[in-house]
Amino acid sequence: MTTLPVSFKDVLAASDRISSYVHRTPVVTSRSIDDVAGIKLFFKCENLQKTGAFKARGATNALLKAKEEGRVPEKGVIAYSSGNHGIALSRICAKVGVPCTIVLPLGCPDVKWKRMADYGSELIRCVTDDFAEKMRRCEEQPDKLFIKTADLEDVIAGAGTAGLEITEQVEGAPLDAVITPLSGGGLLSGTAIAVKHRWPNCKVIAAEPPGKNLERDLRAGRRDPQMLHLDTVAEAIRGKTVGELNFAVMCELVEKTVITVNDDEMRAAMRLLAERTKLVVEMAGAAPLAAALKIKRYFPDVNRVGVVLSGGNIDFDAFVANVKKAKNSNCNGNGNGVH
Amino acid sequence: MTTLPVSFKDVLAASDRISSYVHRTPVVTSRSIDDVAGIKLFFKCENLQKTGAFKARGATNALLKAKEEGRVPEKGVIAYSSGNHGIALSRICAKVGVPCTIVLPLGCPDVKWKRMADYGSELIRCVTDDFAEKMRRCEEQPDKLFIKTADLEDVIAGAGTAGLEITEQVEGAPLDAVITPLSGGGLLSGTAIAVKHRWPNCKVIAAEPPGKNLERDLRAGRRDPQMLHLDTVAEAIRGKTVGELNFAVMCELVEKTVITVNDDEMRAAMRLLAERTKLVVEMAGAAPLAAALKIKRYFPDVNRVGVVLSGGNIDFDAFVANVKKAKNSNCNGNGNGVH
Repeated sequence: MTTLPVSFKDVLAASDRISSYVHRTPVVTSRSIDDVAGIKLFFKCENLQKTGAFKARGATNALLKAKEEGRVPEKGVIAYSSGNHGIALSRICAKVGVPCTIVLPLGCPDVKWKRMADYGSELIRCVTDDFAEKMRRCEEQPDKLFIKTADLEDVIAGAGTAGLEITEQVEGAPLDAVITPLSGGGLLSGTAIAVKHRWPNCKVIAAEPPGKNLERDLRAGRRDPQMLHLDTVAEAIRGKTVGELNFAVMCELVEKTVITVNDDEMRAAMRLLAERTKLVVEMAGAAPLAAALKIKRYFPDVNRVGVVLSGGNIDFDAFVANVKKAKNSNCNGNGNGVH
Repeated sequence: MTTLPVSFKDVLAASDRISSYVHRTPVVTSRSIDDVAGIKLFFKCENLQKTGAFKARGATNALLKAKEEGRVPEKGVIAYSSGNHGIALSRICAKVGVPCTIVLPLGCPDVKWKRMADYGSELIRCVTDDFAEKMRRCEEQPDKLFIKTADLEDVIAGAGTAGLEITEQVEGAPLDAVITPLSGGGLLSGTAIAVKHRWPNCKVIAAEPPGKNLERDLRAGRRDPQMLHLDTVAEAIRGKTVGELNFAVMCELVEKTVITVNDDEMRAAMRLLAERTKLVVEMAGAAPLAAALKIKRYFPDVNRVGVVLSGGNIDFDAFVANVKKAKNSNCNGNGNGVH
């Protein structure tokens, strides 16, 4: 095993560092979803996290650690983000008095940039939908510390605290598997570091949108550096590329078999969660449940599975429209509670 | 102070008795709802409780205690319920192997009676919408133990465990007030017993639908025994009457000033909760937030308030229809996360 860029000790240190700034989110269970899935599921509710997504963990850890180490320049920090990372970084910067600049993609939803503005962040708007422009806009401000969304040790360690908490909150035997959605790979790689340390036999599995092709890349051991947008309504996982550090961790710790889920499957999972667990999640947040509902096809021996509901930041009208598109779930009635 | 029918010690005993059968539900906070309310709110998430409502607490306590004391006859137990109590009682009976019979009102939603049937309960359907028929149907089966929905010591003690947990989960100073929705009064009276013991200066406040007139009755010290349905879409709090034991507790411990909330106010609160906290609650579950949003008019000195989100058992299409009727909340954007 090669040396990983982030250790379990880093995750523990992140946990101590961020604990008074973020929630220890609950793990909930639902007998009625278990009946649908045919396995026992444990939902880690990062939709209930500060700023509505797991991103609060990594952004908070990266910012606080940089501050501890005297690495934050006078002009503060910069990041590019279409949403959750930018909001999370804006929040912690506002809390500890660090100037924050966020580079926004073309068409960033009003509800998202307004929250960053509310926290006092300076906003820079891109004029194209191009990854190169976003990177350039960040790099042309070298007087600010660049805090990437996923491909950064301290962001990975922070994200890993979600996985750490799962190992502490689930009672009884270790889980057979934990599934997270996959975008840049911060959550997946961080979770893998924490979970595989505590539970070496637990599989850590990615749920990805169509076209991502992580399985091919993992099997080849070669990261695809192409910067593209995938065709999915789950905007939080639209980016095709995973980070370099994240990919290195995945190659060591994550299952080579990746579960691909399409928009209809995410919509159905989103509806099921709202009906049965009373939780609102965003499309990407529902991806790991969509994967869990068909996991037996890929991993027949898996019976107890952790599902990281990564975030809940969905425009409410979009939420309603997407759940209406989802077919009624095929079990006895809607509106059921948590059993 | 007269002797109350249920003591704080009874609530503690209930907590021990039911702890392995029900969830210790989380308390969540939302900076953005606090901004709307102008006060600090703490949401006790009984919508995430087993069977989707706080009713699991009281039903579980009453059944387990009766069993401990050898009071469960061979034919089992009986109750009337249009939903949450019946599901909760059916579940615990199935778990511990006690036969359960539920008397259903006319027009009990399919989603609700099917869940009781799934747990193996015997169902008896009323042919009128009359309270007298429901009572008669229960009383004509004296070979079964009758477990009432609210007006029963062990149900009150069980419901009180929600309040007990609030006093343990909220950090810092005691809350200034705790608000619960009001139907039969099990949740309100149980919460009052627990909260007033731990935090004597905390006000315990009822949120009621129009026409309930609890304030008049509390000020007169006289319970209105009329059995009527109120005109509200919040079906879990449609019954006009509160229980005798519950009323006795309220007279001692609950604020005489009661906050009345109409359907539009509950809808708006339900939407706000879904948007900002990512939680689905039923109409009645949103009533205490609707009350909290105008609490300053009634209690100007209250600044930190507990809100018991009593349940989440709403038909999903009804949820969508009601939040669409609610006007957009008047703050910056929807889809915000938990801050």
